[in-house]
Amino acid sequence: MKTAKSIDVARLATAGQPGGITVSTLAEAEYFAGHGIADILYAVGITPQKLDQIAKLNSVGAAIIVLTDDPDTADAIASHARPPRALIEIDTGESRGGIAPDDGMLLEIASRLGPTLAGVMTHAGHSYAGRSLDDMKRIAEAERAGVVRAAERLRSAGHAVPIVSMGSSPTALHATSLAGVTEVRAGVYMFGDLFQAEIGTHALDDIALTVLASVIGRRPGNLLVDAGGLALSKDRSTESAPRDYGFGRVLDINGRPSLGEAVVRRAYQEHGVIEPDPCRPLDLAIGAKLRIAPNHTCMTAAAHDRYCIVDGGDEVTAIWPRVNGW
Amino acid sequence: MKTAKSIDVARLATAGQPGGITVSTLAEAEYFAGHGIADILYAVGITPQKLDQIAKLNSVGAAIIVLTDDPDTADAIASHARPPRALIEIDTGESRGGIAPDDGMLLEIASRLGPTLAGVMTHAGHSYAGRSLDDMKRIAEAERAGVVRAAERLRSAGHAVPIVSMGSSPTALHATSLAGVTEVRAGVYMFGDLFQAEIGTHALDDIALTVLASVIGRRPGNLLVDAGGLALSKDRSTESAPRDYGFGRVLDINGRPSLGEAVVRRAYQEHGVIEPDPCRPLDLAIGAKLRIAPNHTCMTAAAHDRYCIVDGGDEVTAIWPRVNGW
Repeated sequence: MKTAKSIDVARLATAGQPGGITVSTLAEAEYFAGHGIADILYAVGITPQKLDQIAKLNSVGAAIIVLTDDPDTADAIASHARPPRALIEIDTGESRGGIAPDDGMLLEIASRLGPTLAGVMTHAGHSYAGRSLDDMKRIAEAERAGVVRAAERLRSAGHAVPIVSMGSSPTALHATSLAGVTEVRAGVYMFGDLFQAEIGTHALDDIALTVLASVIGRRPGNLLVDAGGLALSKDRSTESAPRDYGFGRVLDINGRPSLGEAVVRRAYQEHGVIEPDPCRPLDLAIGAKLRIAPNHTCMTAAAHDRYCIVDGGDEVTAIWPRVNGW
Repeated sequence: MKTAKSIDVARLATAGQPGGITVSTLAEAEYFAGHGIADILYAVGITPQKLDQIAKLNSVGAAIIVLTDDPDTADAIASHARPPRALIEIDTGESRGGIAPDDGMLLEIASRLGPTLAGVMTHAGHSYAGRSLDDMKRIAEAERAGVVRAAERLRSAGHAVPIVSMGSSPTALHATSLAGVTEVRAGVYMFGDLFQAEIGTHALDDIALTVLASVIGRRPGNLLVDAGGLALSKDRSTESAPRDYGFGRVLDINGRPSLGEAVVRRAYQEHGVIEPDPCRPLDLAIGAKLRIAPNHTCMTAAAHDRYCIVDGGDEVTAIWPRVNGW
């Protein structure tokens, strides 16, 4: 839920499913627990000073699970007055957090966690560097095999490992086997974005989130809109994708690509500069409305405190709040 | 106030001054008007559909001034049931919004605005491309001369031009003459940032805003902290500065550069990867606290809904809210 941060989206995503969600901040954990979702993984390495807040939420009905790859932190978890359950973070190739499946420290951390050990978790974020379905499938299989290998090592040493968790949006969508895995996490999956479309996670017209903008200036060769770096984010992930969309792809008010290849080429704090498709000049009046599909929806969504729900037109049928901050 | 978006900062900045502020969103205009500041320039080109909200705020005590460079929008302003005062946006070299001081359209827009015309305004944002005090001084003088030239043309045609407004933080600080100018606007000026320090706007230790982060992971050669792209922003403005700070400069808990040349080299949504100074390895425990000075404080501040005020230590002496969104 780190992308959507919305109980309405969580309900859609878990309808008819056993449920259980993953969050990226304690603010999210508190928000979703307050909306009745108990089974929550806080999938960012825990620090000792955050355990009191977790314990407080768990004492009123939540069942927040924490994550660590550090022996001292494992001690802090196990010795807390109200210890949460914990997963050990496994690095299956991203080289961000976690220890390798065969790291000698794995059993040491497990033994320090003692009965709070609930399983293992990995995030193959390096799938974002993939550029084909074959890349995704290969990374997904390495992710699966690595986290399952860590689980097997722990089981061989006598530990119960009920949770074997993997996931990134590309690998969640394109894994060919999930053997041995008990859950798959995916965030940007909820809405999609230009970068994910470029790397093959989903189709370009699957992007569910756009930023509504108005034309505020007209100059020869470009248009100014009132959506800049704050509304769109300064994320430039498509810079390294097959196609570079600048700061976003320009769509019409109905979310359709009727404006050709127009993109937001520059982003000031509150001004976006639209570069029209050379074959389709944009003659729009001041105040005309457009939609901008984002490079990286996790970053763009976080600039806004609510979603205005539309269904193909510009009539807002619902407003869904989201939880920002920490 | 587009950087700070805080009434507490506005009071500090205007203490002992005639006051009057500039904002970048209608949310800011409403917030500051609600806190008793009447004289407000909304310095982003207005659209006709935003005039009703301006009129509503102006009917209960605010005196919000709008900005345009478009004849049709000038008509919409002048014919509104409760028209605000308006400035004509002048382009003195940034090539973002505005018309040139000698543009034939200047008198046409003025005449359409009629009695709502309050003056001229320019923003020399291209000062950000300067790399020396001489650059700043030269751009500031071109900014001043251009906007004063536009004012003189309007006065020669019989228009009253009480407001002649210029400003960007670099030119506000380094202009050698303000002859003919009635107000200077500056935003990032309030806090400073790494990019502004790099281009010579202020000293590196003048940066007033940092992001507090905790160590959440330790690996050979780097540290993970719980401040990533959402807490720091994805702004990479120092990429084109003399020194590239990645996603921020790492300081100790007291805001001092005792950690040498450490920077945040990579930023995931909630994870930052700190690359230590090669001459000063960082051996910090999970949970250790650091501060990160931002590349672009306008973007970083907008990720947070309040400021925790400290004075050299880590004791929070006050909490100042800010107004985000639109």
